[in-house]
Amino acid sequence: MAGMFITLEGIDGSGKTTLLQLMTDHLQALGHTVLPTREPGGSMAGARLRALLLESVFGTVDDRAEALLYAADRAFHVAEVIRPALQRGEIVISDRYIDSGLAYQGGGRGLSLEMLLQINSFAVNGLMPDITFWLDLPVETALARLCGERDRLEQENIDFFRRTAAVYQQLAMTQPQRFLRIDAVQAPQMVLMEIMRVLGPRLG
Amino acid sequence: MAGMFITLEGIDGSGKTTLLQLMTDHLQALGHTVLPTREPGGSMAGARLRALLLESVFGTVDDRAEALLYAADRAFHVAEVIRPALQRGEIVISDRYIDSGLAYQGGGRGLSLEMLLQINSFAVNGLMPDITFWLDLPVETALARLCGERDRLEQENIDFFRRTAAVYQQLAMTQPQRFLRIDAVQAPQMVLMEIMRVLGPRLG
Repeated sequence: MAGMFITLEGIDGSGKTTLLQLMTDHLQALGHTVLPTREPGGSMAGARLRALLLESVFGTVDDRAEALLYAADRAFHVAEVIRPALQRGEIVISDRYIDSGLAYQGGGRGLSLEMLLQINSFAVNGLMPDITFWLDLPVETALARLCGERDRLEQENIDFFRRTAAVYQQLAMTQPQRFLRIDAVQAPQMVLMEIMRVLGPRLG
Repeated sequence: MAGMFITLEGIDGSGKTTLLQLMTDHLQALGHTVLPTREPGGSMAGARLRALLLESVFGTVDDRAEALLYAADRAFHVAEVIRPALQRGEIVISDRYIDSGLAYQGGGRGLSLEMLLQINSFAVNGLMPDITFWLDLPVETALARLCGERDRLEQENIDFFRRTAAVYQQLAMTQPQRFLRIDAVQAPQMVLMEIMRVLGPRLG
């Protein structure tokens, strides 16, 4: 495919949403066609799944059902949004993708990483990111940033995010070519510069 | 677990819904506590997924997303409805369960049966039915019964149902202890009698 597929990963409060906007603006200013998107909820069907996942209406959601819903959202996202944009030659930047499925449901919820990898590989039908930026920062810093937000996921405790971050750490060690750690404690403009130092040469 | 878990399988139009009602009435008249349920949509969250799956709003749903949504619905169903009822010692009868996930998404949609078995085994967390009744009848007979119904699934073509039925046939051959073929061309009361001849001795 002609386009480039970039994903942003990290625990809640790591600054992915801000970075997605900064990267999009920056790359567009350089003349690229950019599609910023996110999970869950990046597709039309996914938006309804996102509502179902993030609302508190169901109280405790069964862990396996949750993992499968995120995977379904991901399958919709790939089929309806990401793959068509890449085929048009665009740069797709997604706030979360397959690694979130491993880190949150595997690390956070404690489900089998091997099983989650199989389910998510099925969901994305082989489409892996060209490059992934992991916005890493201490869990306490991330939670302090989130102060005041109250959706279901963000009420999870600090241990949950520690286990999630541990899987990201593992991915950074096992897939160093694709999965790059970025220090997310620094100011967003500094994070952007660090990302662009990597992306620049690849974009030509 | 103290209860008994019975599932009804078959292509659309095979008479599962009628049988579910007849079996429930019959078993209750015999003094049993029965929980009739169904997939998709047997749980509170699942009811919303069912709406998402059966409405035509999304046009063509990506096959993988569809398979994952059904699996998520199944996981909710097990966690919120089936397992608790079995733990209370009830007889649970479900109109569709894991075998539908194999027959429809594997046979009908042509996805890998092995992958679907893994995903669905994950979803149900090991809970298999004690016994499954497969209501078998010619595809043409089933489609004739469905005349007039128009949800998305029932607009599928005859080949789709033939491929689905072929997987049911395969299950009947490979799991003869659990997965029993019942001739569903005969009148519902006759089907009920045939089912009760099998169930009677097991219920004591």
